[in-house]
Amino acid sequence: MDRLIEAIEAAQNPSVVGLDPTPALVPPQVVDSFAEEVADQVEDPRELRATQLSVAYFAFNCAIIDAVADIVPAVKPQIAMYEALGPAGVDVYTMTCEYAQQQGLYVLGDIKRGDIGSTAAAYAAHLAGVAGGEEPFDAWHEDAVTVNPYLGSDGIVPFTDAAKAADKDLFALVRTSNPSSVQLQELELADGRRVYEHVAALVEEWGADSIGRFGYSRVGAVVGATHPDEGRALRGAMPHTFFLVPGYGAQGGTAQSVAGMFDRNGSGAIVNSSRGIIGAWLRSERWDDSMEASEALELVAQCAREAALDMRDQLRVAIP
Amino acid sequence: MDRLIEAIEAAQNPSVVGLDPTPALVPPQVVDSFAEEVADQVEDPRELRATQLSVAYFAFNCAIIDAVADIVPAVKPQIAMYEALGPAGVDVYTMTCEYAQQQGLYVLGDIKRGDIGSTAAAYAAHLAGVAGGEEPFDAWHEDAVTVNPYLGSDGIVPFTDAAKAADKDLFALVRTSNPSSVQLQELELADGRRVYEHVAALVEEWGADSIGRFGYSRVGAVVGATHPDEGRALRGAMPHTFFLVPGYGAQGGTAQSVAGMFDRNGSGAIVNSSRGIIGAWLRSERWDDSMEASEALELVAQCAREAALDMRDQLRVAIP
Repeated sequence: MDRLIEAIEAAQNPSVVGLDPTPALVPPQVVDSFAEEVADQVEDPRELRATQLSVAYFAFNCAIIDAVADIVPAVKPQIAMYEALGPAGVDVYTMTCEYAQQQGLYVLGDIKRGDIGSTAAAYAAHLAGVAGGEEPFDAWHEDAVTVNPYLGSDGIVPFTDAAKAADKDLFALVRTSNPSSVQLQELELADGRRVYEHVAALVEEWGADSIGRFGYSRVGAVVGATHPDEGRALRGAMPHTFFLVPGYGAQGGTAQSVAGMFDRNGSGAIVNSSRGIIGAWLRSERWDDSMEASEALELVAQCAREAALDMRDQLRVAIP
Repeated sequence: MDRLIEAIEAAQNPSVVGLDPTPALVPPQVVDSFAEEVADQVEDPRELRATQLSVAYFAFNCAIIDAVADIVPAVKPQIAMYEALGPAGVDVYTMTCEYAQQQGLYVLGDIKRGDIGSTAAAYAAHLAGVAGGEEPFDAWHEDAVTVNPYLGSDGIVPFTDAAKAADKDLFALVRTSNPSSVQLQELELADGRRVYEHVAALVEEWGADSIGRFGYSRVGAVVGATHPDEGRALRGAMPHTFFLVPGYGAQGGTAQSVAGMFDRNGSGAIVNSSRGIIGAWLRSERWDDSMEASEALELVAQCAREAALDMRDQLRVAIP
């Protein structure tokens, strides 16, 4: 986790921008502006919409990355948004990751993969790269990924091995930000603990042999901003585990509700905001339906930068 | 689940072939045979190996699909094996799914996705297709997908909605076949049940409003062949839930250990074998290192067909 912590220190900003585009978050004139270019490329006309959105997502992401690269340490593209467009979207996911790395950002791939041993080993290529050349080929351009713990350590060890080999990290789901997370994660166990507390203990264990020089291991935990009390308790129970905190902004989390997830030095966590930053243009008075695509992208970028600065400043006030 | 059950009935064979290629499972001369073709296509020489393997996986999969299409009802490509090669692999995953559907097979995409509401909705495009044209564009060509229940119903409802709209199905992880599945799935709850039993009850609930004409809902469950006693008990506790049973063959499951997961009519489950079928050529006495690529693929196909017939016949004897 050292690289991420250094990047946070350098920016003096423990926040990460979620690059989760949807058709509603990209200005329509930006999507329209690629119509001709895409029509020439696509063989099957049914693929037009998916391809056009994919190209638009990349332009949208690059505009945002350029606008925030000097103020945030990291971005977190959510692969689901790209998979929703099929393989063309997956291409744009990797292009986005690569572009963000080129701009000096730490890229946290929100992929939430989880499977049994040999299959988890295949997924771990997200971190390890494709073997077989002189050195592994990095097809995904992620510095860390999120993983699902439901299958136990068989599903995690291939990722920790890959993380150690490639100087990368992973974040296991512990307590997610959504309402129905209670249905499984909050179940009370026979020993009095909750399921997520048991998973938290497993995560500390999984990271025990990869603790870096700031005291945090390569195995982080996802702890939703919507659970401030549990987050504070987990901070105490997981001294070597760095937290990725989603649910800020649109889902209701505030700087105050995440403050308890940081350690006494103001480190130990990074807070994600997606729609609050990449969709900030939707709340702008400067928006005008008749804008050209380039003007619209410029406004997207300006609003994202303002929202990212605002979030940074709110976190700086709230965090110890 | 009606389409799958009909396909099983037609083939009189409740087994599914796992299309999980790895570099070790594809004969080396098949991979080599694509060297020139790929060298012309790839811009960055570091991508060569991944692209060459991707093309080889597709040829390998097509050979197997052609060899088994008349004896099995379904195939189950494991997307991790394709993601391990980056976007080129993901392309081949969708091409494999499309080819299998064209040959009349039900395609069960083993993607184990799971995320919160809005993100799960994006993943559900695997079933729903890409909106925006005259009708949704099916970019993935899957008839069903596997999903992870750790996030609760928020992560499931988008898939059940999509399944109903598109006449497709999903399978939620309940009791996986791997050894460390005990670390979370077998935890004892305060009410005396195990975590997986609680998840089993959720799965029955999630499927309650999509029960088809054979009595099974659109929400199936993944129950590993390596847990015969729990599988038998779950069969009783989940009367409307169709089972996908992995772990047959290479992982130790036998026709006897899966028999209890079927209902009294010999329906209610489909058993997966991957390496036991697609890697059957590795155990063949007819193998010869000096074979041409086309001969090697022919042997892969023959051995896969023999192994699939053998599995079918063993299941027919063991199942009520």
